[in-house]
Amino acid sequence: MANQTSHHFSSVMELIDGNRIAADIVAELKTEIATLPARKPCLALVRVGDDPASVSYVRKKEQTAAEIGVTSRVILPPVSISQAELFALIDQLNADPEVDGILVQSPLPKGIDEVAVFRRVSPDKDVDGFNTLNLGKVAQEDETGFVSCTPAGIMELLARSGVDLKGKHVVVVGRSLIVGKPVALLALQKKAGANGTVTVCHSATANLPALTRQADVLIAAIGRAGFVTGEMVKPGAVVIDVGINRVPDASKKSGYRLVGDVKFDEVAPHCAKITPVPGGVGPMTVAMLMKNTVKAFRLRGT
Amino acid sequence: MANQTSHHFSSVMELIDGNRIAADIVAELKTEIATLPARKPCLALVRVGDDPASVSYVRKKEQTAAEIGVTSRVILPPVSISQAELFALIDQLNADPEVDGILVQSPLPKGIDEVAVFRRVSPDKDVDGFNTLNLGKVAQEDETGFVSCTPAGIMELLARSGVDLKGKHVVVVGRSLIVGKPVALLALQKKAGANGTVTVCHSATANLPALTRQADVLIAAIGRAGFVTGEMVKPGAVVIDVGINRVPDASKKSGYRLVGDVKFDEVAPHCAKITPVPGGVGPMTVAMLMKNTVKAFRLRGT
Repeated sequence: MANQTSHHFSSVMELIDGNRIAADIVAELKTEIATLPARKPCLALVRVGDDPASVSYVRKKEQTAAEIGVTSRVILPPVSISQAELFALIDQLNADPEVDGILVQSPLPKGIDEVAVFRRVSPDKDVDGFNTLNLGKVAQEDETGFVSCTPAGIMELLARSGVDLKGKHVVVVGRSLIVGKPVALLALQKKAGANGTVTVCHSATANLPALTRQADVLIAAIGRAGFVTGEMVKPGAVVIDVGINRVPDASKKSGYRLVGDVKFDEVAPHCAKITPVPGGVGPMTVAMLMKNTVKAFRLRGT
Repeated sequence: MANQTSHHFSSVMELIDGNRIAADIVAELKTEIATLPARKPCLALVRVGDDPASVSYVRKKEQTAAEIGVTSRVILPPVSISQAELFALIDQLNADPEVDGILVQSPLPKGIDEVAVFRRVSPDKDVDGFNTLNLGKVAQEDETGFVSCTPAGIMELLARSGVDLKGKHVVVVGRSLIVGKPVALLALQKKAGANGTVTVCHSATANLPALTRQADVLIAAIGRAGFVTGEMVKPGAVVIDVGINRVPDASKKSGYRLVGDVKFDEVAPHCAKITPVPGGVGPMTVAMLMKNTVKAFRLRGT
């Protein structure tokens, strides 16, 4: 790996442009929604309290919904809401025939059981894909379920970049319920584009570099800035960086910049394809949320 | 691997005796049930038609239940039962306060959707662990769920043989919903004894032997007699053979004998531990079914 510390980019290296791919999906959905004769899909966005990241995420979701013609309904309960009150609110949305999708923005205040809240959302409106039943459907390869937006976005990025996982060794670093486990189950599925051989590594893995170096497709979802170094990646690999980490940067007005789990400058030069951070997996999340909302609308048949 | 074709068994090789471990579990459950003051756990066994293997499996489950003091109720609908009628039967059992666990013996007649039938069983009585919600709970590491009996039995065999998966590379061959996927999720869990690094291989895997040779713990669940040969296994590995395959054998009265997915004579000599077939994973299935039935009884709090 002579070029590991060089910043010379291989002529065959291709940047996977998440912004462009997400924009394509959003445009496709806009066209699809424009053909609907009457009622448009409606997404309920529940944001508890005023966590700054949540404010920004929910605003972005609202904007994208407006852009494509999905009606959104933003509900802003106070941070003091009890779990029982939040359940009652979700039950109302579950029962509301005008609502197709429900997203409860994470994180929730301490004292509220997130998994229980996600399980309260009716599975057929669970456009975030966090309901236990929808997780089970991912394992069952049941297409009537909803796949959570980040792993679904990763699969879409790969498909739209011409990466077929069949016969490939996919190594996932990180075993979270939000990314690592569902993307491993998706990569294993028997459907076209999937059929990968899948390894899941994590904090308890012995000799991690020996495993990551075997990856034809490496998915980094650890949540640690620059964790994946050049020597951990096989030349010619496809690298998907799921991390979004803030590192201090005095040159920025905000005082920080966003970096991924992958040391981009070291890894990119000898990759076949790689996602940047920002602009890789991140933009896909909102696009897939919109795709799930339209799917929920269609499946409900209203 | 000088001893790969030799039949000399290493002095350190240990046979994992599934019959003995299953008998231990059954004895523990019998002691536990004996202490119950009043009503005993009740398991409903639904067997549709007269498939000979199903007849034998259900009889074994009934016998073990009787042995430990679990009440069983065997229901034998005709092979002509419709899916709607089977649903109605399951609904009755779901609603029956005397019934703690429900098992619908697979395979079901053609024309009946097995996954839909398993999903019809109330999750809190789903002692077979095939309900979609319970699959999702395996991914969520939610201990209120039920793990299906074969993968649960594999984890129990490992635990009771002193095999801690932490820091180990677990390679699963086979990605079925019944064994491969759930055992992969279990081996990945953060709880004591698990924390394995997990690779799932299958029919579309390229260079399978290079992956199986990396396994500290190899779980073979392919359903092909003698698929795993000596050269596919690292010396010192722990091998769990989930396969139960019939091969013709004129020396047997039945005309066949049962063999696993592993070429035992080739692999055993250089293993640390290995399960035989029969007498390895097989006997664990019924023991874990009983364990799930007692758990369902306890969780229902009746």
